[in-house]
Amino acid sequence: MKAIIPFKKKNAKSRLSPLLSQSEREMLAECMLEDVIRALKGSVVDKYEVLTEGSLNEAINGAIHRTQEPMLVIMPDLPLIQPRHINEIVSANADVVIAPGKGGGTNALFLREPRRFKVDYCQASFLNHLGIARDAGMSVYIYDSFFVSTDMDEPEDLVELLIHGKGAAALYLREIGVALSTTSGRVGVKKR
Amino acid sequence: MKAIIPFKKKNAKSRLSPLLSQSEREMLAECMLEDVIRALKGSVVDKYEVLTEGSLNEAINGAIHRTQEPMLVIMPDLPLIQPRHINEIVSANADVVIAPGKGGGTNALFLREPRRFKVDYCQASFLNHLGIARDAGMSVYIYDSFFVSTDMDEPEDLVELLIHGKGAAALYLREIGVALSTTSGRVGVKKR
Repeated sequence: MKAIIPFKKKNAKSRLSPLLSQSEREMLAECMLEDVIRALKGSVVDKYEVLTEGSLNEAINGAIHRTQEPMLVIMPDLPLIQPRHINEIVSANADVVIAPGKGGGTNALFLREPRRFKVDYCQASFLNHLGIARDAGMSVYIYDSFFVSTDMDEPEDLVELLIHGKGAAALYLREIGVALSTTSGRVGVKKR
Repeated sequence: MKAIIPFKKKNAKSRLSPLLSQSEREMLAECMLEDVIRALKGSVVDKYEVLTEGSLNEAINGAIHRTQEPMLVIMPDLPLIQPRHINEIVSANADVVIAPGKGGGTNALFLREPRRFKVDYCQASFLNHLGIARDAGMSVYIYDSFFVSTDMDEPEDLVELLIHGKGAAALYLREIGVALSTTSGRVGVKKR
């Protein structure tokens, strides 16, 4: 069973620009990818490929249409994911398993028969993927995890990483001086 | 086994003011409470109490120190919660079960021996509650659910409710014309 991880390093995570420089964002993106890969290596998934091609949909659809075996598509900005999540996702009893991300996203997508599917990561991709599975007559299991739903797009997302993270990305954030900020009554992040 | 739900109706959910009027926010808060209560009624929890007193910490600590039986403290703004979540939370094998909310929050807190605990919902309450349990020598299980983590504070949180919601709160939002907006490339909400 194989996992693919679409990854873009160059100017990664631009919505974190208010807090982090371009090189810091790129380094954080690499650390998050490392966390995802470590989770995969601890799981039953036995191989993975990092896709660095241009268009997300084209790259993923190219990969899933070349394979004959079940495939996991997993986002690279899930620093809280653990091997148990991966194992649960790929062992769910359905043709398609979707782990939702915040804001209508799809953070992990497991396809038992990848060639019968076509991904669409535009906008509310969770709804897109539900619809695509339904139209193809495929059963869907929605995998419910806070830690898998927590991708890192906005500065406020880093709150979750600082609170719950134990991997490379959390360590890197702390190293460059990003810390919780609770001065305003709500929990945010600050950088020294 | 009893659940308590702290609830404030008057001027509820003030951070939704950019989108909803005061009466709409109060109605939405009531619908969300209805969704939480429906989940409780479908679960193994056999009684519940809505706490409407002033201070959150005082109200909850008062209630948990008056009881001799296990108690679930659950927030009223979790419109995506289902009976299975409640059943899994109260059957976890630990002294304390914490279901994290976004931003370091505690959305559900199950206490097997409530009188040994003291809640602190200020700021990063997840970390507070971890520390309180640790200091009291209590074991902790972190309950990992996207749907339980998804509380409704900001307009963008309503995206999750519109995408994943099937209960009273999702119905009410749609009735008053709140819908997904994907014009900017990212998924948000708009009101007609």
